[in-house]
Amino acid sequence: MSGTTELTLGDLGERGIQEKVFQPRYGLTEGFGDDSAFLAEVKSPAELVATTDSCPTPLVNLLGEPDLYHAGWLLATINLSDLAAAGAEPLGLVVNYTLPKATTVREFERLLEGVDACCRAHGTKVAGGDIRDGAAMQLTATAIGRCAPGSRLGRSGALAGDRLLLVGSPGYLWAAALLATGQATLPERDRDEVWHRACRPTAQLKAGRRLATTGLAHAAMDVSDGLFATVRTLCEANGLGAAITEDFELDAPVASVAEQSGLTPFALAQTWGDWGLVVVIRPGDVDQVKKTLREEGIAAQEIGELTTDGQLTSGPENEPWQGIAQERFSATSWHGGELSTLITEVLGDGRNPRVHGTGNAVYGS
Amino acid sequence: MSGTTELTLGDLGERGIQEKVFQPRYGLTEGFGDDSAFLAEVKSPAELVATTDSCPTPLVNLLGEPDLYHAGWLLATINLSDLAAAGAEPLGLVVNYTLPKATTVREFERLLEGVDACCRAHGTKVAGGDIRDGAAMQLTATAIGRCAPGSRLGRSGALAGDRLLLVGSPGYLWAAALLATGQATLPERDRDEVWHRACRPTAQLKAGRRLATTGLAHAAMDVSDGLFATVRTLCEANGLGAAITEDFELDAPVASVAEQSGLTPFALAQTWGDWGLVVVIRPGDVDQVKKTLREEGIAAQEIGELTTDGQLTSGPENEPWQGIAQERFSATSWHGGELSTLITEVLGDGRNPRVHGTGNAVYGS
Repeated sequence: MSGTTELTLGDLGERGIQEKVFQPRYGLTEGFGDDSAFLAEVKSPAELVATTDSCPTPLVNLLGEPDLYHAGWLLATINLSDLAAAGAEPLGLVVNYTLPKATTVREFERLLEGVDACCRAHGTKVAGGDIRDGAAMQLTATAIGRCAPGSRLGRSGALAGDRLLLVGSPGYLWAAALLATGQATLPERDRDEVWHRACRPTAQLKAGRRLATTGLAHAAMDVSDGLFATVRTLCEANGLGAAITEDFELDAPVASVAEQSGLTPFALAQTWGDWGLVVVIRPGDVDQVKKTLREEGIAAQEIGELTTDGQLTSGPENEPWQGIAQERFSATSWHGGELSTLITEVLGDGRNPRVHGTGNAVYGS
Repeated sequence: MSGTTELTLGDLGERGIQEKVFQPRYGLTEGFGDDSAFLAEVKSPAELVATTDSCPTPLVNLLGEPDLYHAGWLLATINLSDLAAAGAEPLGLVVNYTLPKATTVREFERLLEGVDACCRAHGTKVAGGDIRDGAAMQLTATAIGRCAPGSRLGRSGALAGDRLLLVGSPGYLWAAALLATGQATLPERDRDEVWHRACRPTAQLKAGRRLATTGLAHAAMDVSDGLFATVRTLCEANGLGAAITEDFELDAPVASVAEQSGLTPFALAQTWGDWGLVVVIRPGDVDQVKKTLREEGIAAQEIGELTTDGQLTSGPENEPWQGIAQERFSATSWHGGELSTLITEVLGDGRNPRVHGTGNAVYGS
């Protein structure tokens, strides 16, 4: 080891990591060190749900800020976002870290800090986990939650005529990418705000729970692989189509980035990384839902309607929706992509105002 | 793609995997396809626990049987074994697969079959999961369970004078390794039996739950990294030492392998891979516990006593126990070892009747 600040996980070994890193951070957690982590005592009837997801290298890390805090925050967000789609209250997270021995203790602590901070922001905690050494970093977590009996949301439950609401403010992550690669500029304050939102996406737990327990939502899915993939999957699960608006509202700085980059708001709103939630609402409930969310300070916009024809269309002319979706095990799998290729594929070349792309990651309806 | 039998995951893509592999296997599972998996409806008060672990390459795969079924079985066992140590009833498993695109669909199906079969054998199921492509296979799972309120077992709760019981039959995995590497021979039937037990280790869920709900166990830990590591951790968690017997009972074929290999039963019983459970019992309850387990057909033996002196000793003379423990992030981390090195390090060179080794993975008390 070359000095205290450069201490690595390999220097500590598993027992050292346990003693020097986990014990100070999690030692007061009930059941710390036991073979199974203690999640919660459930005293009233509940439907339990669980979700597990790995975390890709955060785009903000690829854009030049190597702090593992972002990866930790994202790892928690990805998993909590799936609980949001179920309308669940989180009971805890268990985390599984594979890290190279050369990872410094400081880097690892930043990673843990990011996970912990995101959990705190959502009123939950890391209950336990596991660490092992491996050639490449791999971050996986599982989030466990509870739903009030009968309130659990899934992908099915939608009817033709139902409205789709997008909860959350889309476009921040890829606006940050466009700013970082010089395709747009903003005043420093706005730029900082976009960057901050890109680094700290929010799982829509509060909205999901509120709409589930009130019975206002009938199905939900988070936007993990792009809006097109989410809407397509919701439609497939219900045997329906969807007519999507192209009039998307973006927050002012994001709208400015879109305009400077030659992209429509619709194009930028279709990307991923902001962990919005698409919720299926009965037409008569739309105003009530908007009011409910507004009271909670949660952004939401109506983005379309479910149809019987099985097609995915967009805009006033109901043209076929040419959306983009990242897909794993494809030639353009996100996990293997280069930054420049990704930006081009996700957002086009900036001259075409319509999102399009090439390769396996792009689907027509 | 080079033919149906050689179809790979990369050929199918994520949506193809979902449709061709997951849907036929898990499509009837409640909540299949939702962002969060449905685990269970809990109707009466419960303490919820969760555990997450990755699966190393199974030793039986290194010994020459490449079937991924073994890895699937082991992945489930590792996680269910941690629930056993809590005395919990499993509610479900969520699994996280990272696999190379070149993995064949058939290989993947064997992997899933192994996980599913192990879950079925323990009365539980795969509730959901995630898959992504990566350069190397990595298998991670999370098991979630429930305990009756107040019955949850952890590592602490032991008193000096308490007895340690080892639940399960130790030594099968490394006996199989000794057989496979020609250091012992057995009649075919016994050899098959040893190999089968090595391939299908059993999480001691029934014993853990029974001893937890009856209040007979006061602490428990599974043998995931060797008996020495388990006893040492239990002692550290309780500020105690332990005096361990060297008179271990092995099942007859395992005992024969030990003898032929020049190993004492104690040496072979200290290894890992059989997913035994070390349980802390009050001295007055030992007979009752043995009777309870015998009635369930579960093997168990008393292996020692907890002491006040903080030392780990073995044998009638209470000599310092020179145990072996695998440790991650060490020079001899199990995940990076070569088979021949591993056998030598874990079991010695076969001429020395006492387990010893070299390098970071070996600890004295």
